[in-house]
Amino acid sequence: MRAWVLKSRPNGMPQPSDFDLVETPDQPLQDGQIRVRNLWLSVDPYMRGRMNDAKSYVPPFQLGEPMQGGAVGEVVESRNPGFAPGDKVLHMAGWRDTATIGAEAMPQKLPSIGVSDDTWLHNLGLTGGTAYFGLLRTAEAKAGDVVFVSAAAGAVGSAVVQIAKLKGMTVIGSAGGADKVAFVKELGADACIDYKAGPVLPQLAKAAPDGIDVYFDNVGGEHLDAAFATARQWARFAICGMIDVYNDGKPQELKYIIRTIPTRLTMRGFIYTDYMADFPAFTQEMGGWVAGGKIKARTTVRDGLDATLDAFLGLFSGANTGKMLVRL
Amino acid sequence: MRAWVLKSRPNGMPQPSDFDLVETPDQPLQDGQIRVRNLWLSVDPYMRGRMNDAKSYVPPFQLGEPMQGGAVGEVVESRNPGFAPGDKVLHMAGWRDTATIGAEAMPQKLPSIGVSDDTWLHNLGLTGGTAYFGLLRTAEAKAGDVVFVSAAAGAVGSAVVQIAKLKGMTVIGSAGGADKVAFVKELGADACIDYKAGPVLPQLAKAAPDGIDVYFDNVGGEHLDAAFATARQWARFAICGMIDVYNDGKPQELKYIIRTIPTRLTMRGFIYTDYMADFPAFTQEMGGWVAGGKIKARTTVRDGLDATLDAFLGLFSGANTGKMLVRL
Repeated sequence: MRAWVLKSRPNGMPQPSDFDLVETPDQPLQDGQIRVRNLWLSVDPYMRGRMNDAKSYVPPFQLGEPMQGGAVGEVVESRNPGFAPGDKVLHMAGWRDTATIGAEAMPQKLPSIGVSDDTWLHNLGLTGGTAYFGLLRTAEAKAGDVVFVSAAAGAVGSAVVQIAKLKGMTVIGSAGGADKVAFVKELGADACIDYKAGPVLPQLAKAAPDGIDVYFDNVGGEHLDAAFATARQWARFAICGMIDVYNDGKPQELKYIIRTIPTRLTMRGFIYTDYMADFPAFTQEMGGWVAGGKIKARTTVRDGLDATLDAFLGLFSGANTGKMLVRL
Repeated sequence: MRAWVLKSRPNGMPQPSDFDLVETPDQPLQDGQIRVRNLWLSVDPYMRGRMNDAKSYVPPFQLGEPMQGGAVGEVVESRNPGFAPGDKVLHMAGWRDTATIGAEAMPQKLPSIGVSDDTWLHNLGLTGGTAYFGLLRTAEAKAGDVVFVSAAAGAVGSAVVQIAKLKGMTVIGSAGGADKVAFVKELGADACIDYKAGPVLPQLAKAAPDGIDVYFDNVGGEHLDAAFATARQWARFAICGMIDVYNDGKPQELKYIIRTIPTRLTMRGFIYTDYMADFPAFTQEMGGWVAGGKIKARTTVRDGLDATLDAFLGLFSGANTGKMLVRL
């Protein structure tokens, strides 16, 4: 097995010297374990948090140990009666070519629903689930709502746009630059503002002259404040990420948060795994949309385990369009 | 009838020249109307908003017409079979000595539950109801929760402190100055920080070393940010007011709002009248507490209709301790 291990905890932006690619001999399987040859690895921004030695909603990576992350692979050896060689599985023992895993890596057999294997790492995995649950459960968005979503060309945002349209909502996206704006409109958004072309609020107020019912926040900052400014009565905000804060750590200047009171706005944070009990329902509905071609994804694919670290670091320099993946 | 009318819409801080005290002859009663001699008038900060010609959750005062507001009076004449002379009523035709009213002023007969008449304008009225519903319904606070409340010596905040203690919560208040801090502790708060004595966050972190479950916000700004910083998992914030914003209109600098995500925090705005359907249940529970001496109030009382404007303006210069009232 070759695996990426965390050698030292990064201070600020992770450096290649914080990581090592280490080869270790495969151990004989224990009862209950399976051996998986990985086919696809996911790299995600949230993994940066696991590199700190801080208490959070996911435990930190251990120094000198292989890192974890979403992966899809094929069972090559099994001492677990639930899995047979040839089965495709989704699991959390990523960052390596071969995974020897028990229940702790949460392997799940991939249902045969006519979607490509990598789909389980984006639209049917963390990013699609984050979009689906955040929009429909956290924000309780429903047909007829006006939905605003930031980072709408990103992996999560582009799924939000498409789910909202399939559910009969009006969707206004925000993205940076003409190419991304065009992509968001191709996905079906009724409008998309270009935050690089000018301030967010006047553009949003023009695109949603009667205000917004739902805001799906991926960025915080100016976008969040514009959402407060345009919120209608009983608006709901699902807070998924605040990349503006990750980047600069400065306080957010919110001029319109006081509108929380007259609008009776509800703002709520969430994490994908809060809805674990509903994953089967999500897989069924979203799987049907993906298999039917109703939800698309853009991915950026790097090849080979050696490229995994570079793929991860590229998340912070905008090297990806849509979901970043590694193909082994 | 003598009544205060709005002569011109204030620009910024209201001035005496924006108002007039006008005398008009009483008109004969119409069917369904009652005549009430007012005994107590309420002046409240929210009335400032009604002086603007802006769409809000309450309609603006009309120029040249008597202003409205909570009042308690005694029926002196009735053409409504539901009311008889001598009945005490709570209604919305304040700012005047004699009110001639129909259903539009929402007169309600005061139940005989052994509380003083003015109680219906604070602990059994807007301020007590705001505290009760905001804490128990909007924030869904329950026994065992650690509750933080700002402006804890104010009319709403002091009710929050007492209700929370009666419901088995741990309560940390914030108030400005040693006298107010001592008062909040007398009300039963487990701790009270003095925001004039130093920054809020370190004081709150010390008073609530394991964090807070609920924040009842009356002020916004630094207090709100400290609440974000110390929020525990699944914390709930009820946003009642943001007096820091009313005062200076500057953007709020929130460094810790990003903690909304890992804590899955819910922040929600509310207005007392959202819970109108539950007023009877509130009156029963809160009335029992007030009649039993378990909830106290501090009031500042001015005498005479002529003093009403001065009482209202005093709200903005800190002339009141607790609820400001006018006795006729």
